Amino acid sequence: MSGFFDLHRPTLESAVKALFCREYWTPYPEVPSGRIYGETAKAEGEADFAALCGGVFDLSGHPAEGQAGAEVSPFGSVLGIRYPVAAPDALIAAAVAAAPALAGATVEARVGVCLEALARLNRMSFTIANATMHTTGQAFAMAFQAGGPHAQDRGLEAVAAAYAEMTRFADHARWEKPQGKAAPLVMEKRWTLRPAGIALTIGCNTFPTWNSYPGLFASLATGNPVIVKPHPRAILPLALTVRVLREVLAEAGLPADAVLLAVDEPGAEVTKALAVRVEVKLIDYTGSQAFGDWLRGHARQAQLFTEETGVNSVVIAATDDLDGMCANLAFALSLYSGQMCTSPQNIYVPAGGIDTDKGHLGFDAVAAALVAAIDGLLADPVRAAGICGAIANPATRARVEAVAAGRVLRAGAATGGAGPLVLAVEADDPVAREECFGPVAFVIACADADAGIRSAADLAAEKGAITAALYDTDAARISRAEAAFAAAGVNLSVNLTGNIFVNQSAAFSDFHVTGANPAGNASLTDTAFVATRFRRVMSRRPVAA
Amino acid sequence: MSGFFDLHRPTLESAVKALFCREYWTPYPEVPSGRIYGETAKAEGEADFAALCGGVFDLSGHPAEGQAGAEVSPFGSVLGIRYPVAAPDALIAAAVAAAPALAGATVEARVGVCLEALARLNRMSFTIANATMHTTGQAFAMAFQAGGPHAQDRGLEAVAAAYAEMTRFADHARWEKPQGKAAPLVMEKRWTLRPAGIALTIGCNTFPTWNSYPGLFASLATGNPVIVKPHPRAILPLALTVRVLREVLAEAGLPADAVLLAVDEPGAEVTKALAVRVEVKLIDYTGSQAFGDWLRGHARQAQLFTEETGVNSVVIAATDDLDGMCANLAFALSLYSGQMCTSPQNIYVPAGGIDTDKGHLGFDAVAAALVAAIDGLLADPVRAAGICGAIANPATRARVEAVAAGRVLRAGAATGGAGPLVLAVEADDPVAREECFGPVAFVIACADADAGIRSAADLAAEKGAITAALYDTDAARISRAEAAFAAAGVNLSVNLTGNIFVNQSAAFSDFHVTGANPAGNASLTDTAFVATRFRRVMSRRPVAA
Repeated sequence: MSGFFDLHRPTLESAVKALFCREYWTPYPEVPSGRIYGETAKAEGEADFAALCGGVFDLSGHPAEGQAGAEVSPFGSVLGIRYPVAAPDALIAAAVAAAPALAGATVEARVGVCLEALARLNRMSFTIANATMHTTGQAFAMAFQAGGPHAQDRGLEAVAAAYAEMTRFADHARWEKPQGKAAPLVMEKRWTLRPAGIALTIGCNTFPTWNSYPGLFASLATGNPVIVKPHPRAILPLALTVRVLREVLAEAGLPADAVLLAVDEPGAEVTKALAVRVEVKLIDYTGSQAFGDWLRGHARQAQLFTEETGVNSVVIAATDDLDGMCANLAFALSLYSGQMCTSPQNIYVPAGGIDTDKGHLGFDAVAAALVAAIDGLLADPVRAAGICGAIANPATRARVEAVAAGRVLRAGAATGGAGPLVLAVEADDPVAREECFGPVAFVIACADADAGIRSAADLAAEKGAITAALYDTDAARISRAEAAFAAAGVNLSVNLTGNIFVNQSAAFSDFHVTGANPAGNASLTDTAFVATRFRRVMSRRPVAA
Repeated sequence: MSGFFDLHRPTLESAVKALFCREYWTPYPEVPSGRIYGETAKAEGEADFAALCGGVFDLSGHPAEGQAGAEVSPFGSVLGIRYPVAAPDALIAAAVAAAPALAGATVEARVGVCLEALARLNRMSFTIANATMHTTGQAFAMAFQAGGPHAQDRGLEAVAAAYAEMTRFADHARWEKPQGKAAPLVMEKRWTLRPAGIALTIGCNTFPTWNSYPGLFASLATGNPVIVKPHPRAILPLALTVRVLREVLAEAGLPADAVLLAVDEPGAEVTKALAVRVEVKLIDYTGSQAFGDWLRGHARQAQLFTEETGVNSVVIAATDDLDGMCANLAFALSLYSGQMCTSPQNIYVPAGGIDTDKGHLGFDAVAAALVAAIDGLLADPVRAAGICGAIANPATRARVEAVAAGRVLRAGAATGGAGPLVLAVEADDPVAREECFGPVAFVIACADADAGIRSAADLAAEKGAITAALYDTDAARISRAEAAFAAAGVNLSVNLTGNIFVNQSAAFSDFHVTGANPAGNASLTDTAFVATRFRRVMSRRPVAA
């Protein structure tokens, strides 16, 4: 039962250490290199994906009453994969049946299953990359990293946090209370971990694995059977994940039904029916604030862990590296066509301009430099496609095309590879006070840098934000910005140039989402993310002193 | 600022150690002895209490628009204390004004304040004991322990858990990501703790300090200003606590208004008005499930930490110490007239009787032995008064007097010192399927011991339970009971005889409430109790490799 645990114990111990020291660490190389993953891995990943397309997805032993699946690649092809489908009743029944064995397994058995599954998923990273690419519209390199190793990092991080928490308190104790001159009172106490119930993981279209793995692995490691409900446009990456987990569970002598797949098609989602089931006690959700509100209102029997909507801002106060700043922001705005929860949207620039290494530049000149950097970055169509990918969901394209506000600084286009639409808008324009998910950025004139910081922080506190960026050369003002964004619960990146971007969030170091503003209540991965997924129950009895 | 922290650091370090190893530990002696607390402490406590009665309670600098207070001792006297009263608007405004300074204080400054306040409260234990006795109806010895040292233990436990959690992750890191042959990417990262908001602690009538200290100290230590809303019948113990905290805060250079008192009178409670305020992000509540449901429905902006209603059961399967068992249960049922959230209510006995060290006894004989033990325990009126105390709330007496079910095995009486009403009822009698808070116990015939275990565990899972007790000599059945009660999320005590009782829950060892059944979602004190009271926010910036 604990063979997997022993095998992966060094990885787990390193992960726990990294979790708390927050320095760079990963066991899963992010470079899609044949030297690392095997010279045939790339071709095999493509072949695996091609073989899956048009077929029936095999989930041996999974409840099935029919088939469904209507995935279409944002790059154009129809995937044509049919997945087993079971009604919510059947899924809940299967999960409930699996629960006692999973709850009764040792911490090491469950954690071992998670670690082995992550190791297998890592070896499958090229297959996962193709599945991610053709469900999310991410370009290949990003699909590999975000769908593969970086998602695995976040899964492992959750397992490490869960393991640390489950083993944090003594599981037995001898309690000996002095009684003056009399013999002490002595009690022997033992604690059992009690999982919360059935867990539901609700995946999103754009990052099916990266955003789902933390909740999935945290719930499973702590003993809760998990029903994985992918976005109907991005099933395959999670179906592959569920298959691996079911295989490993069975090999460990645990019920495969401890992880289940709830497949549906656009317009016929089963999410609500599952979310309100009394057996469901944990829900991990990534998506819109509107559906988050629905869950808060209706799934009152469950704990909710959410990542929702937000408006991410950049404040440009000053820079001693104008070119570096513009190049960095151009990439941050273009990457995956702004379809990241961490993508910047609002860019605050003082109306009177800023000081730079190339002299004082007016508002228009700053905006022009930024647009020029985007244009330069995306001048080569192949490179542009590799950065921007495709638009995952037609609704995103429609949303951006419908924006009619301000003054066009840079035109977008109907294809993702065109990069962001850039508009100059007034600070009080309603369009800039809501998330407009997709390839669009608003450049906003503010009275001065402090006013821009205040606007961005206030908006984050009110509407939510996951990232903020500041460019500045004034140490005192940087400190003020740090305080303002900390009060708004937003992680801040200061003076990013070169090859690190505000959209990037590294497992084991950057907590993703703070939980301290409306952009989400869950932070990847802090203690709160795992601590309520299980409880401790005691049995005590007196013993002779 | 950190003088208090340095002063109490050894206590804190011992508390953190005890928290995780769960062995016996306390810095606050539970014996009301002059040798420990000073030979004059008892008289001074009585004098302090007498001086407070009939006067205006001084809370220097506290918002006040008037006075209120209508406390009457369950032992008969009118306290006649008038407390400063401010409207919810004024309390919220004061808390909001105090928030930035409290949030900006160091962990050590806030934790130091908590530790110093607990030390001062400990020295005041005789005063607190009198205040507790004359608001709760607890007899003096219990009022001293539960209102004083044991409550301080629970407060310290929460501070230790909060401190451990706040310092668990690195607060800064140098993140260095290799880039092949190129220079590594290097980022410096710093994390700031961000408190959740304003905290509301809603006290109960029966254990004003014991049940309020965990939430109060956990919220304050993690940087959230706390509005303490005592039960209108039990204000004084918390008013004394708030005064001490405000004094210590001021001495530490922090705003006294970081702890505020919300006083009201029965029938004119301000709890709801405070609970729904958008600024209130944390609510700690002890009380009925009905009001808990109200909070869940209406205070949706806040995290709720609750201890609510439950039905605690005893299963008598067999015993090798009949006298010890009956004596132990007699005390458990009589202590504070059943007004503990941990008091047993339902006693399951096999219809065919049980094996004992005095031979096989029928159902009626077991019940008779238990009743005889209660009668014996309470035969001496002075001793009975010292065990049973008084009934805190007239509603409790009315509730017990209204019970009309089953067969009377032992009559109760209108005075608390009479001990419990004991009734033989059928398992499906609705009266035994709800909490009947107060001096009453139901003896229930079950088909056999396993059926009794099942009934008790199922009821706990459905209605909630904080404690369960089992008397048995069959190791296999004890194991089955442990599994059943663990699945129901109830802490189990096995074969208690002698001077330890199922109602007793020791800080640093017994988690109080598991959070795994409807009796409450908060466990004293696990990680979940503190982890979401604050969040981590990062600032990161690149540095040269």
